[in-house]
Amino acid sequence: MRISDIILKKRKGYSLSKEEIEFFIDGYTNGSIPDYQASALLMAIFFRGMDREETLSLTMAMVNSGNRIDLSGIKGIKVDKHSTGGVGDKISICLGPMVAAAGAPVAKMSGRGLGHTGGTIDKLESINGMRLNLTQEEFINNVNEVGISIASQTGKIAPADKKIYALRDVTATVDNLSLIAASVMSKKIASGADGVVLDVKMGSGAFMKTIDDATELAKEMVSIGEGAGKHMVALVTNMDEPLGYNIGNSLEVIEAIDVLNGKGPEDVLELSLEIGSYMLLLSKKFNSLSEAREKLLSVIENKQALLKFKEMVKIQGGDPEFIDNPELFKKAKNTLKVISSNTGYIKHIDSEEIGRAALLLGAGRENKDSIIDMSAGVKLIKKVGNFVSEGEAIALLYYNDSGNIEEAREKILSAYTVTEKKVTPSKLILDVITKDNM
Amino acid sequence: MRISDIILKKRKGYSLSKEEIEFFIDGYTNGSIPDYQASALLMAIFFRGMDREETLSLTMAMVNSGNRIDLSGIKGIKVDKHSTGGVGDKISICLGPMVAAAGAPVAKMSGRGLGHTGGTIDKLESINGMRLNLTQEEFINNVNEVGISIASQTGKIAPADKKIYALRDVTATVDNLSLIAASVMSKKIASGADGVVLDVKMGSGAFMKTIDDATELAKEMVSIGEGAGKHMVALVTNMDEPLGYNIGNSLEVIEAIDVLNGKGPEDVLELSLEIGSYMLLLSKKFNSLSEAREKLLSVIENKQALLKFKEMVKIQGGDPEFIDNPELFKKAKNTLKVISSNTGYIKHIDSEEIGRAALLLGAGRENKDSIIDMSAGVKLIKKVGNFVSEGEAIALLYYNDSGNIEEAREKILSAYTVTEKKVTPSKLILDVITKDNM
Repeated sequence: MRISDIILKKRKGYSLSKEEIEFFIDGYTNGSIPDYQASALLMAIFFRGMDREETLSLTMAMVNSGNRIDLSGIKGIKVDKHSTGGVGDKISICLGPMVAAAGAPVAKMSGRGLGHTGGTIDKLESINGMRLNLTQEEFINNVNEVGISIASQTGKIAPADKKIYALRDVTATVDNLSLIAASVMSKKIASGADGVVLDVKMGSGAFMKTIDDATELAKEMVSIGEGAGKHMVALVTNMDEPLGYNIGNSLEVIEAIDVLNGKGPEDVLELSLEIGSYMLLLSKKFNSLSEAREKLLSVIENKQALLKFKEMVKIQGGDPEFIDNPELFKKAKNTLKVISSNTGYIKHIDSEEIGRAALLLGAGRENKDSIIDMSAGVKLIKKVGNFVSEGEAIALLYYNDSGNIEEAREKILSAYTVTEKKVTPSKLILDVITKDNM
Repeated sequence: MRISDIILKKRKGYSLSKEEIEFFIDGYTNGSIPDYQASALLMAIFFRGMDREETLSLTMAMVNSGNRIDLSGIKGIKVDKHSTGGVGDKISICLGPMVAAAGAPVAKMSGRGLGHTGGTIDKLESINGMRLNLTQEEFINNVNEVGISIASQTGKIAPADKKIYALRDVTATVDNLSLIAASVMSKKIASGADGVVLDVKMGSGAFMKTIDDATELAKEMVSIGEGAGKHMVALVTNMDEPLGYNIGNSLEVIEAIDVLNGKGPEDVLELSLEIGSYMLLLSKKFNSLSEAREKLLSVIENKQALLKFKEMVKIQGGDPEFIDNPELFKKAKNTLKVISSNTGYIKHIDSEEIGRAALLLGAGRENKDSIIDMSAGVKLIKKVGNFVSEGEAIALLYYNDSGNIEEAREKILSAYTVTEKKVTPSKLILDVITKDNM
């Protein structure tokens, strides 16, 4: 088999065999296939696409390029959750403790942020002492001990995906449905859960800009997961404005704590309840969505979810006082109000622009070597549907380094679209995909 | 400017600006843009194509990546000729001396062979002592002295094209019209001639398999050349069987000498006369094709073209006795007759298969480091339109190393298609493109 023949075959629009895809992934992982042939193949895949069978083969070849986490040491049905990446998406932080408190084991591997979207691992590191690089043994022991653990993915999980993702990032081959689906699902399958609930974002701040594309991606991933023997549900959710009010690492943890205290923003709570209900259903802890939802509301009400979060923080070396008293989080030295020059109803808030403003303030990574400023970020004051008057503040910027402050302010202003007519916010959950409705 | 943005722009189907194309070529030539981004861009260009303006910008950027040969030291209008690569194509070897003898200066840079097509430079090296690596000064002096010089392209001619061609070769991005056109024309423009006659091959042994594709490529190259201020003519010619009877280095020089002795195969003579007539027209030495053709026939008749070839060989250090007495060429130790197992009329001879058979016998390069066996090759005994009986020989193989002899014999057999009906060979010249009929 020669890689140039495989590139040619895909370029001509033929489907690649399982063996050809394995040859590519194995060769690229071990270095016998160079970057320049891999990027040519990725671009050919971008144009020609991959059918479901090819995408499954690609996913499984990437799974097999590294280790598979063995979660059999954890009792019960393990259910994972994954978001395709949003702005202000702190769902995993409040959702994990909620689901664990409701009785289903949560063994979650998460990633770090890159570009305009943040990562759960970075956010949790804003809690003093918190350790996210756990050994597999610690990870499993912690779930058995307190019912939940969140740890960072090791390089041994789907190393082929890691290498390919870095290449796609610099060769304009990121936004292809099959490649996105295989990338997400290879990590989820290797992470060892029995079921996965996917949150597929749609809108200005997401990979998928239209409902059709997002639904297609959701179906593709459900198909791959089911093909690999996992129980799958995918929600297609709206990312036409950021989730909640806070964007930035410690700011998002604080907002997640608000949710667990019953004081969180409505959209963050609602999405946590929806995803959590499906997780509890897949874990067979509940037989109906309504029972599961009721349980999740009750563990907020009776503070069991908050307690679960504290237990998790403590067992991972973090200071649990931070959860009771968010004033302990390190604060940004400076704040700046962003003042509206328009009057009207907020129609749309471009999530990507908000994410980029936070990035400019130091809350994210421009590249892999950037150091994150944990306390920097954006607090939205006005959200879609709100009325704003000229001279009123729409957002508050938190920052230590004022180098990009003016650019960040402009990004916030340009992210907001204001209209004269009253605006009703769009639905948050747009579609639910399972193997039964594909 | 960022190369990833340029890749994305082309991937989305937009035209690249002159500045963006120059940024790519400059960066790739100096190494600041890595192979993997170049190959992704090339694949995006494969799928999206380039318009005429982009192709001209690409060509000129590749010209400017290296030196331009200054031919102003040669009196008169300098006319070059280029073939897109055929099997048995020894036209340059007989044509150059014919045109020079007819009074137009011939300053021709040629390439070496790779894969199933041979190169003029390799072929001429079969003459003892022949030097093809000339300095620019020698090259120009020789043309002024004897009216003709053929030399190998130096690495300083369009180095960007050289680097990109090597990358295309291993990333399945060779057969794109704009990339082929820019590759050919960058070298021709940098080589400094005032006019160029192109021989665009069409058929099984050529890049272009259909008349439409070949005509399109011809138009693209004429357009680029005219855009760069050159006088251009492109002939679209049939490559549905090899040119002449001989394929292999010394075998082809011997056949070219036959042409200059008035004893060459009809197709080689005819194509030489056609291309040569247009060259003489572009050089302004003649005002009509028929006068030019008559002159070319007369320099064969009166042996002036043969004499010109001898003068060129002599001034480049070669032994001119080889031209008078081709028995001096080194001979292959062994020959093998390929016997037909069919009876009928020859309908088609797959040029690529014949080229690959010659390659197997040692006449070509599998890769850039292969050493050529000058005396190895194939002599066709039957050509399209001929009748063959079962048990009759259709070709003769010349070889020193018998390692691949059986495979080569099979390739020859499979290259021939025989039919019961009488066959009339197709026209050799299929179309003529100038700036006036595009």
